[in-house]
Amino acid sequence: MTAPDALRWDAQRLGAWSEPLLARVEAALSQWVGVDAPVLLGDAMRYAVLDGGKRLRPLLVFAACESVDGQAEAALRAACAVELIHAYSLVHDDLPCMDNDVLRRGKPTVHVKFGEADALLAGDALQALAFELLTPEREGIAPAVQAHLCRLLARAAGSQGMAGGQAIDLASVGVALDEARLREMHRLKTGALLQGSVEMGAACGSIDAQALDALRAYGSAVGLAFQVVDDILDVTADSQTLGKTAGKDAASDKPTYVSLLGLDGARAQARALLAQALEALDRSELADTGALRALAYMVVDRDR
Amino acid sequence: MTAPDALRWDAQRLGAWSEPLLARVEAALSQWVGVDAPVLLGDAMRYAVLDGGKRLRPLLVFAACESVDGQAEAALRAACAVELIHAYSLVHDDLPCMDNDVLRRGKPTVHVKFGEADALLAGDALQALAFELLTPEREGIAPAVQAHLCRLLARAAGSQGMAGGQAIDLASVGVALDEARLREMHRLKTGALLQGSVEMGAACGSIDAQALDALRAYGSAVGLAFQVVDDILDVTADSQTLGKTAGKDAASDKPTYVSLLGLDGARAQARALLAQALEALDRSELADTGALRALAYMVVDRDR
Repeated sequence: MTAPDALRWDAQRLGAWSEPLLARVEAALSQWVGVDAPVLLGDAMRYAVLDGGKRLRPLLVFAACESVDGQAEAALRAACAVELIHAYSLVHDDLPCMDNDVLRRGKPTVHVKFGEADALLAGDALQALAFELLTPEREGIAPAVQAHLCRLLARAAGSQGMAGGQAIDLASVGVALDEARLREMHRLKTGALLQGSVEMGAACGSIDAQALDALRAYGSAVGLAFQVVDDILDVTADSQTLGKTAGKDAASDKPTYVSLLGLDGARAQARALLAQALEALDRSELADTGALRALAYMVVDRDR
Repeated sequence: MTAPDALRWDAQRLGAWSEPLLARVEAALSQWVGVDAPVLLGDAMRYAVLDGGKRLRPLLVFAACESVDGQAEAALRAACAVELIHAYSLVHDDLPCMDNDVLRRGKPTVHVKFGEADALLAGDALQALAFELLTPEREGIAPAVQAHLCRLLARAAGSQGMAGGQAIDLASVGVALDEARLREMHRLKTGALLQGSVEMGAACGSIDAQALDALRAYGSAVGLAFQVVDDILDVTADSQTLGKTAGKDAASDKPTYVSLLGLDGARAQARALLAQALEALDRSELADTGALRALAYMVVDRDR
């Protein structure tokens, strides 16, 4: 690790930092999601979003915003927007024509509870809502920031980001990918939105090109580390701890970091990516990267 | 009709006006859609969007932009964005868990050609791309216009717009709706994006509140007229002319204007809505509403 231990936030400090932010996210999501939506649609949207998940992406937005001393109101909307994109992707990913999964965050998946058609529509509506949240009519967020946030989110979510990664994933079942191609898939599928979260947080303030490059590298390393750890947990954790079906990747013959590198190799990879992320933060020369640093540790050390 | 005949564009003039605009839309979509998207995803996106459809929504954007002497570059992006939202909604609507339709624009639907999972992802990616097109990094479109366009499109597409209307539609199969509830469903399902197209065109220029209200009323009337005519054509046209399965609504026991008002009643309704749309244009006191007027006639007089 390149970071002196003095710079490591402990779990307690991370908790104290994140708790009020997460409370704001929950309150905002509860106020904004599925309200006034017709019939079952609003219920399905709220079920998909509220009271669940680690909220890693919102925390990355807030931490990056903090590192550039950015605007809190913009960060809150950006945090909610990335979480909506993440939530919609899970709803669609769980559908029978995709992963056909019935358990998510310890609860029945949206289509099990509301039916496939409403799950499909809820996902679609959540994506639209993400962009609606980023463009409030009367609020002190500069139009240039609103447009920039939309641009970053659209790219992270689209065919050259998350949706593109999912398409590669689909095409990879039963196919032997080498590490480079596996990394490319995950760079898009999970990495793009995690890196996008960091960039959106930075877009809530001002940042020079060199520091932005460093934050992007941080986001990229954390994004990939997240997926490596996901692959490890899919093998080592049980479904109850994960809140979703464990052992799924192996069962569906999907290539993973564990199948490619072995368990120890995957763990070493995760540590190496953590080191890369921390090194990028050092390189950024941003003053206040404590939260970003702590989140990188959290991503690698998590047990679910 | 409140419009003097002298103000009616004939079909030839409408064609001369729309032809170069449609050529620009096709060229732009071909340049922007599915390029650099991985594996089959890009092909599915392009199949869903290119070389098909009446492009009514883009034409409404251009016509409204013209009425406020707005910026052509912004209108082109807005026109493509609304068409992408429309295209994605068709892809998802055709999926087996929704309408389960195999024919669209005279071709196999996207999921028939590419499989359900890629169709789902292509729709998702098209929605993201719509917002990406609205927020170009280097182009002379003011950030305030970009943000405004995103806001309008997100609202038109989301749970209080198109997706909401589709959810009501889902919940209405086999249910006896009265005219007010049928209108509410269509106001969201089809009307929101058509009205949104008009508002987005107007957002490419400047417009006072009274004229904007009038344009909204125009968009609302045209949107509803479109649906009434759709219901009529579902009964009177054959599948080959429509390019999609005719008689579908009656077969699936969906409430329609024809089932509610009868064929003559529905036709009278369409004419009344056309009159409302034209009256709203008169009220707007905008100088250049010829194209909007012609499009209203086209919506009501079309045979597919």
